[in-house]
Amino acid sequence: MIEKLIQKIKETNAPIVVGLDPMLSYVPEHILKQAYETYGETLKGAAEAVWQFNRGIIDCTYDLIPAVKPQIAMYEQFGVEGLAAFQKTVDYCHEKGLIVIGDVKRGDIGSTSAAYAAAHLGRIAVGSRTYPVFQEDFATVNPYLGTDGIKPFIDVCKEEKKGLFILVKTSNPSSGEFQDRLVDGKPLYELVGEKVAAWGAEHMGSDYSYIGAVVGATYPEVGKAMRRLMPKTFILVPGYGAQGGRGADLAHYFNKDRLGAIVNSSRGIIAAYKQEAYAKFGGEHYAEAARQATLDMIADINGALDAAL
Amino acid sequence: MIEKLIQKIKETNAPIVVGLDPMLSYVPEHILKQAYETYGETLKGAAEAVWQFNRGIIDCTYDLIPAVKPQIAMYEQFGVEGLAAFQKTVDYCHEKGLIVIGDVKRGDIGSTSAAYAAAHLGRIAVGSRTYPVFQEDFATVNPYLGTDGIKPFIDVCKEEKKGLFILVKTSNPSSGEFQDRLVDGKPLYELVGEKVAAWGAEHMGSDYSYIGAVVGATYPEVGKAMRRLMPKTFILVPGYGAQGGRGADLAHYFNKDRLGAIVNSSRGIIAAYKQEAYAKFGGEHYAEAARQATLDMIADINGALDAAL
Repeated sequence: MIEKLIQKIKETNAPIVVGLDPMLSYVPEHILKQAYETYGETLKGAAEAVWQFNRGIIDCTYDLIPAVKPQIAMYEQFGVEGLAAFQKTVDYCHEKGLIVIGDVKRGDIGSTSAAYAAAHLGRIAVGSRTYPVFQEDFATVNPYLGTDGIKPFIDVCKEEKKGLFILVKTSNPSSGEFQDRLVDGKPLYELVGEKVAAWGAEHMGSDYSYIGAVVGATYPEVGKAMRRLMPKTFILVPGYGAQGGRGADLAHYFNKDRLGAIVNSSRGIIAAYKQEAYAKFGGEHYAEAARQATLDMIADINGALDAAL
Repeated sequence: MIEKLIQKIKETNAPIVVGLDPMLSYVPEHILKQAYETYGETLKGAAEAVWQFNRGIIDCTYDLIPAVKPQIAMYEQFGVEGLAAFQKTVDYCHEKGLIVIGDVKRGDIGSTSAAYAAAHLGRIAVGSRTYPVFQEDFATVNPYLGTDGIKPFIDVCKEEKKGLFILVKTSNPSSGEFQDRLVDGKPLYELVGEKVAAWGAEHMGSDYSYIGAVVGATYPEVGKAMRRLMPKTFILVPGYGAQGGRGADLAHYFNKDRLGAIVNSSRGIIAAYKQEAYAKFGGEHYAEAARQATLDMIADINGALDAAL
């Protein structure tokens, strides 16, 4: 799957991913109205609104981008109905040829991680049959439990040709509270990064491993250091746009081949019509606003790469 | 909710929690057969089997115990149908008066943690209405992202009178890989424990905080140290039984009031009929085997407390 991701990045010339993290407050009035008319102001109505919203975004951006990253919490908050909308979204993205990075941040002890890995990347046996479940192509994973929490995910990736992005340094303001603490003179995130590189070395595509890392756009110095420490690791970079990351800060997350990183923007794209720069589109044309924001983001990142590499 | 948990522990004289982590391999033949006859060997059939299995366990143990801990991965692996079985299980446990600890180990950046908190412990607004979603009473949370990943959960707990158990030292063999690394001469789990105690101090019931910690039964020396470090923190102790923890090792997880800890067993109880000691019950009577294993576990823990305190 890492090879497919690289191929799609090259085809689109867009090392970016659109975060499908729909809050109800992002969904324009006309979509909400129709969903509530059909299903009422219910969890099912909310799930329908989110799904229709996503479909519009996907239809208007799929030809520009290699991948999407749905954040499962935004679906889980609407319960079983929300998770059905998550599944529909994943399936529809696949129909459109997009790679799906499930931002699930799961991680547990071995047997439990195995169940999560089956749910998101693998298959589950029921009697004499086996079924794929949510079917993402990559999943994000939390490393706090160590190797035996990660290994079941790696095993499934190997079997199913999928991939992971393991949290190394997250984009949020308090990520340093534990991640930056020094262990033998090195920040914890660096230890985690070394582990990710080591796990990755045993699970390679051709130039890059299918065991990737998450390093937030909001800590560019860390991105630079981690790029050096993990040369064969693909880095998923959240935090661009609304969280504060800018293209100019991100060139050092990439290698000289213009690969090795993929930058995510969620709110900045899917709720673009709410920003001054794209307000002219209005809620009716929220998806076209998302398309324009996607084009602008691609130009911003590529401009930064042209300048730096 | 922490007061209700304490009251129920006192009423039952059972500082234990039954882990509802059903693997299909634990479900006896007669339940599988009926579920597959009704729904086929499908994800829905598997979810039905798991739900019927749980119902048997709950019916045979609810009068002995204060709480259950369903591990959501074991439901998520069957997709949307599995999560519907999770929801049914939570609801049925509430009907039976049990406290439900959702073992979800979620944790993300602020706005995303807020969505998870709403999903599991709070309510979500849809138009002019608000709905509870999965409605657990406590949730387990991963601390790797620091305060702003935890605070949205705490806010919801305060509002809804719910509680948390934050991962400090997990029960799995490789938990030490990151959690034991020394920061300023202290293991990382101790730093996390100090933070949990600090968060907890601002969110107290009467004697204990509703912000608790997870410390695995498989590291009794850590339990002893963390008990001293976090005197007002309730500790959820996984890893008893199948993972290797024994009552005699666990007395030091408790305070002198015989409170402050609650010990979880999953496989050791729900799949008791597969162990030699309870094999005489057979698959047909798996729930009675679970009841006997519950009684034995309560006696083991209380015996250890009698001997030590």
